[in-house]
Amino acid sequence: MKNAMNQITQFETRIKYRFNDKELLLTALTHSSYAQESGNPSGSNERLEFLGDAFFDAIIGEELYRTYPDKEEGFLSRARAAIVCEKALAAEGTRLKVGEILRLGKGEEKNGGRKRESIIADAMEAVIGAVYLDGGFSETKRVVLEMFRDLLEDAKSGRFIVRDFKTALQEVLQQHGVTDIRYIPQGEEGPDHDKTFTVRLEVEGKKISEGKGKSKKQAEQHAAEAALKRSCDVI
Amino acid sequence: MKNAMNQITQFETRIKYRFNDKELLLTALTHSSYAQESGNPSGSNERLEFLGDAFFDAIIGEELYRTYPDKEEGFLSRARAAIVCEKALAAEGTRLKVGEILRLGKGEEKNGGRKRESIIADAMEAVIGAVYLDGGFSETKRVVLEMFRDLLEDAKSGRFIVRDFKTALQEVLQQHGVTDIRYIPQGEEGPDHDKTFTVRLEVEGKKISEGKGKSKKQAEQHAAEAALKRSCDVI
Repeated sequence: MKNAMNQITQFETRIKYRFNDKELLLTALTHSSYAQESGNPSGSNERLEFLGDAFFDAIIGEELYRTYPDKEEGFLSRARAAIVCEKALAAEGTRLKVGEILRLGKGEEKNGGRKRESIIADAMEAVIGAVYLDGGFSETKRVVLEMFRDLLEDAKSGRFIVRDFKTALQEVLQQHGVTDIRYIPQGEEGPDHDKTFTVRLEVEGKKISEGKGKSKKQAEQHAAEAALKRSCDVI
Repeated sequence: MKNAMNQITQFETRIKYRFNDKELLLTALTHSSYAQESGNPSGSNERLEFLGDAFFDAIIGEELYRTYPDKEEGFLSRARAAIVCEKALAAEGTRLKVGEILRLGKGEEKNGGRKRESIIADAMEAVIGAVYLDGGFSETKRVVLEMFRDLLEDAKSGRFIVRDFKTALQEVLQQHGVTDIRYIPQGEEGPDHDKTFTVRLEVEGKKISEGKGKSKKQAEQHAAEAALKRSCDVI
């Protein structure tokens, strides 16, 4: 137990935040598999993840808004998608060694859950939610901006170049020798002044995703975004 | 011009917030069609909408988190979806008469843009973003919670009952005499311990949406959610 507390203290040092209520941090580090096994299913980090996810989006969104005063909304959305995605969160969580102190059920432990990207990313969002409840908005902002400083610095220095989703998808697929990418219109609905277009994305004849939008172009971007989302390959 | 300033002041009274920087509020009320026509395309409200959207999600999320200490994440997500959707935002915007002071291009004006739900909802999110930049987080929280007090009160009193998306979709369709709703498994991908299931939702034999998830059940919920999203029929 003393060892566990030491690990918690070391984690606090790494994230540069000291919790008033250590229980909040422990909950953020509790995977649902552990909560189930210990007979307290509502003690998992899922609610904190719900909370942290939204504050994470808002804080990164604001930072990009301020960093790029001349860029349009589409650019900001794409830049944010590259930072708030599972892969980036998991990378950050790995750097902060969140896996070491996760509370996992036995099955998850055996299945390598301690290193699974989705579990680490979810725990990171839960930690952000816990910081918010414990320390308020401005502390959360400080912690999040510090955590993602490198990615955000890349953005500011211009190394982080966000292109449109279609181009990004094309480049990712080309690296794998795939060039047969088709956006197939699936029709439109709604009145003339407020139409919604649907487009189906097929790669080598296989359906990958679908996108909707106020124009065919926007629907295509959304379809490409959906295809890229899990891979974080939007930068 | 004096009349316009009066209208702005009255709007501030209605949202219970007085802007230090009136230009921020004016930008929030500027539709892209107006910005284009006046030769200042970057002067539209789209960037503020990007900012406000995320803070809106976070603030409503926190309120629901606190209101329902015993509810799980899925419930909170569905409850939030019912409040942050286009229809609810547009209803609130209509009550606050945001349409009256929107700056629209001539074409949009002729096409009835002043009453269009998507335009009003977007402007509301932009106003939230503007309040954030002008007054900071706690003021934004106060304004948003005040704006959505009725919906949130309904939630607290239990009148606002969020069911699962599949049930909600079924009820909506039944009202239109439609009962042929099918969730068709589209296969699974990924390693055994981290599978993603895809489900296709068909209504009367026609594809409506698709959902992905860590279980078949979750994929079905996501497909039903996608189908309901635009209509806000999740409560």
